Amino acid sequence: MNLYYAPGACSLADHIALNEAGVPYSLIGIDRAKRTEDGRDYLTVNPRGYVPALELDDGTVLTENLAILAYIAQRSDNLFTEGGMTPWRALEAISFMSSAIHGNLVPFFKNLPTGEKERARTALVKHFASLDDQLGDRPFLLGEHMTIADPYLFWCLRSAPVSGIELPARLRAFFVRMSKMPSVQKALAEEGLN
Amino acid sequence: MNLYYAPGACSLADHIALNEAGVPYSLIGIDRAKRTEDGRDYLTVNPRGYVPALELDDGTVLTENLAILAYIAQRSDNLFTEGGMTPWRALEAISFMSSAIHGNLVPFFKNLPTGEKERARTALVKHFASLDDQLGDRPFLLGEHMTIADPYLFWCLRSAPVSGIELPARLRAFFVRMSKMPSVQKALAEEGLN
Repeated sequence: MNLYYAPGACSLADHIALNEAGVPYSLIGIDRAKRTEDGRDYLTVNPRGYVPALELDDGTVLTENLAILAYIAQRSDNLFTEGGMTPWRALEAISFMSSAIHGNLVPFFKNLPTGEKERARTALVKHFASLDDQLGDRPFLLGEHMTIADPYLFWCLRSAPVSGIELPARLRAFFVRMSKMPSVQKALAEEGLN
Repeated sequence: MNLYYAPGACSLADHIALNEAGVPYSLIGIDRAKRTEDGRDYLTVNPRGYVPALELDDGTVLTENLAILAYIAQRSDNLFTEGGMTPWRALEAISFMSSAIHGNLVPFFKNLPTGEKERARTALVKHFASLDDQLGDRPFLLGEHMTIADPYLFWCLRSAPVSGIELPARLRAFFVRMSKMPSVQKALAEEGLN
């Protein structure tokens, strides 16, 4: 399968998840003009224009980070989909981060007016504090094992400095731990980020 | 199980899905002061403070619309989780609507500055057009059968007038069709909305 990505964009979460799941993939970069690195118009792949998109071996294209992460989890022999409430907790966490964190990083990514950035900064401090409480002293957001929520949280933390906020201590330690994992190292290297 | 809701809020999607799935539930209303209708502090149920929350029979509380809808789908004998790509397409659609539609309705719900409303309106027109294309001439967003994406789309369409935009024709017809379904009628009646 092919992962359409832009270096450091939220497609990094899927990239890490693919590595962690041990699912073979090829990367196809997208530039700011929405051209693929092999010269195609990306809108023919994802008419909505954003990354990530996951192109399956039969040509089917799946978009939206949460849906792609859930698909990778289901394809994985790994620890993404433990039983009990874990699959629902993972969707809950990714959905929360998608609106509460990613949504409030957009004013900085797009350099929106100061008032919007100030409101977003206040929201980010509150929502990262909530995630810090959820993480607690456990190694991963949902407990002892990595789930698809963790690569997305890693991306949120990696992107947070654009907002100028200070991250809570346990999240900072999580970020350092995740940064050292082979799946993360490989993804960062392949995107030219380390 | 208990669904914590506010009349007309996005918890309406879960309310409709519970009816469609034939899963028994009780409703517990939340007021603007975040008190439950039986006099409790809602923050003890969902520390993040928003609706919906689904309280399972063992007391476990699940939040985030997408996670609750996916949970209901899995509990259902109904048509929510057909095979093939449908489960992933449903997550994709809900995730898209959550950011692209719900996210751009917030400036109207919260009466944010005019500039933000104007930008949101432009985005809503574009994103509803994309959903209208996806729906096409099919009865439901993903095809012949209702999935968990449809109650959420219904809520988006019901909420859209706050933005003052005009909805595309096929989405308007979908809204009328959905409005007549018993699961929707029951949910609207129970929330005092029809």
